[in-house]
Amino acid sequence: MKKIQQANLDEISIASRVGFTGKLLKVKIDTVKLPNGKMAEREIINHPGAVGILPILEDGSMVFVKQYRYPVGTVLYEIPAGKLDAGEDPVVCAARELSEETGYRARKLRHMTSIVTTPGFTDEIIHLYMATGLKQEAQHTDEDEFIDIVAFSPEQVKKMVLEEDIFDAKTLAALLFYYISDKTVN
Amino acid sequence: MKKIQQANLDEISIASRVGFTGKLLKVKIDTVKLPNGKMAEREIINHPGAVGILPILEDGSMVFVKQYRYPVGTVLYEIPAGKLDAGEDPVVCAARELSEETGYRARKLRHMTSIVTTPGFTDEIIHLYMATGLKQEAQHTDEDEFIDIVAFSPEQVKKMVLEEDIFDAKTLAALLFYYISDKTVN
Repeated sequence: MKKIQQANLDEISIASRVGFTGKLLKVKIDTVKLPNGKMAEREIINHPGAVGILPILEDGSMVFVKQYRYPVGTVLYEIPAGKLDAGEDPVVCAARELSEETGYRARKLRHMTSIVTTPGFTDEIIHLYMATGLKQEAQHTDEDEFIDIVAFSPEQVKKMVLEEDIFDAKTLAALLFYYISDKTVN
Repeated sequence: MKKIQQANLDEISIASRVGFTGKLLKVKIDTVKLPNGKMAEREIINHPGAVGILPILEDGSMVFVKQYRYPVGTVLYEIPAGKLDAGEDPVVCAARELSEETGYRARKLRHMTSIVTTPGFTDEIIHLYMATGLKQEAQHTDEDEFIDIVAFSPEQVKKMVLEEDIFDAKTLAALLFYYISDKTVN
């Protein structure tokens, strides 16, 4: 991720305290100095970072996971994804999550881009990869993870985006990169 | 947003309590029943929902805001966006935020799609609009909001996505919809 600094826009950290510590989420409350010299508070969810993988099969179709997402109360179509373990290299995490969630092993994992999901209140970054040269092995999700695997052609996927059947942000970001990038270079 | 229910994937809410209440963020801790009958806890950030607007000028170029985002420590290129006021219609919010952040008034606001940003831990939904028929009036941000306005051609924007200069998830989602949709229908 490129960091852009620009004096007329930057905020400077003055102080930081912990507001909440859960099993998954940690809320920090920071005091910052605004470009006009005034102080303001920022509430931030700390996140370890994550990866998302767009798996492309030999025939060009794309693999998605279907998973119930409790916070939004619906089953979603998403690219396989997961959080980084402490100190884990994103590409290692991508290979691990792809294998755990879908059972596919990839001969090639190409970094597409790294995105910020909700920069207003979390530091979460998701590193996005395209996975090709896929070989099906066994899916091995955690005992309490419930995931269906589905595959669609690029044309079907476009239709699903336009009809709001696919509406997960990281998934749409990966698809944008896929559709506008030069696939012949892969 | 279409809600998909599927018995082998769904989680059912059993109990809910408040873990943290800040000025911006509220953390809920819910107990849920998994498809295998086991119980689990889910930590969720409650969010009022938001809108994002992709403004397209007469010559086809797109308008972005440059804004420092403290949680990720960098200035970002984003589409204009903002939170819904209580009870506010998303399209009204879109017109308001577009005007406040960029000074543009739109003759036409077309709903593209509505996305979930981080379905693992927040209920945030962002309604995405394409704004056309733009007329420049005066930008009128809040006193403590610092925003630069920039515009790029669709080809420049593609390059900026591929080179990781644009990496905000809602912005990439709006761009995907723009590039794959039939612009002649607009």
